[in-house]
Amino acid sequence: MKIITISREFGSGGRELGKRLADELGFAYYDKEITSQIAKEVEMDEEYVEHMLSKGIPHRFGITYASSFGYPTYTQFDTTKLLVAQQKILKQVARDGNCVIVGQCASVLLKDLNPLNIFVYASMESKIKRCIMRANNKDELDEKTVKKMIKDIDKSRVKQHDLHSDTKWGDKTGYHLCINTTDVEIKNIVPSVAQYAKEWFNK
Amino acid sequence: MKIITISREFGSGGRELGKRLADELGFAYYDKEITSQIAKEVEMDEEYVEHMLSKGIPHRFGITYASSFGYPTYTQFDTTKLLVAQQKILKQVARDGNCVIVGQCASVLLKDLNPLNIFVYASMESKIKRCIMRANNKDELDEKTVKKMIKDIDKSRVKQHDLHSDTKWGDKTGYHLCINTTDVEIKNIVPSVAQYAKEWFNK
Repeated sequence: MKIITISREFGSGGRELGKRLADELGFAYYDKEITSQIAKEVEMDEEYVEHMLSKGIPHRFGITYASSFGYPTYTQFDTTKLLVAQQKILKQVARDGNCVIVGQCASVLLKDLNPLNIFVYASMESKIKRCIMRANNKDELDEKTVKKMIKDIDKSRVKQHDLHSDTKWGDKTGYHLCINTTDVEIKNIVPSVAQYAKEWFNK
Repeated sequence: MKIITISREFGSGGRELGKRLADELGFAYYDKEITSQIAKEVEMDEEYVEHMLSKGIPHRFGITYASSFGYPTYTQFDTTKLLVAQQKILKQVARDGNCVIVGQCASVLLKDLNPLNIFVYASMESKIKRCIMRANNKDELDEKTVKKMIKDIDKSRVKQHDLHSDTKWGDKTGYHLCINTTDVEIKNIVPSVAQYAKEWFNK
């Protein structure tokens, strides 16, 4: 089974790259669908699951810690249950056939299945530009707000990653290919990245 | 003019990738030739030039500092002269036509010419394996010696890079594409990297 995982900085166009890559290769594409499946698996509300996974609260932090820092009072049981379900669902979709998975710490959680791990990043300036360009409410967005949003979301991704791995999120040693999308039109680089993936799987 | 710079960890196969990439694209290839040209330019011995550039002694360190740490007593004048010559020669070859340049801090020194900057890296285990495989004296090499050599050479590259740049050597933000060659046969990934370069220059 050929699995490509995409980890990405917010605003770098990583999701677009993942989607287009899946189309180009004829692979299945998974992104938010995984969260829905996890929610079903654990019989919890999808939004709650997404919030918990994205906040990445380490399960060694109990109720007291969480409350004192203003987090909702997740139980240790909920968090553990979710992480187990996340891994289970990821392995299920990976078994279903060749796929591209965006996010979900898939590079770490599916390590045993030898995925091709891609990290997508860009300069802050370029990420801000991309975020504003694709927003529906362009007029209400200013650069400062967008920059804060990018930083906050990536901080959540670091936390989520830290739950599962000793390597640092975004450290190139944890990935097979790191792509800087600053000033790059995503659709223009898809053919070569798809070609790289084919060559890599035949390595 | 299309310029590709290759920075690489020792033993990662970066030079091989650079050479094959130049062949695939029909670009000129520069590596040690640059050092020869610098030596001619400054009328110094080639080996001396290579040693000085690779050791990367910051020119703010005068003769006293160099002596007290056991370095040959480079003069501040020599170092400055060399760095000026390095930049001059790099710009000359870049002006001559499309090219791939391996090493020489070209990613930093040719920044104004908008090169495609590639960083090539691999796990220590893979680098040791590659070094031993390509050595003529395989039988005399043990892993410990090779590991020390890799670390020493990369330390020199960090020093050389630090002469020119505030960004860290190997930090992905300084490059457009970072390629992990662990368990990868270099020649197998050349077509897609060449394709990426074409798409990137048309970005």
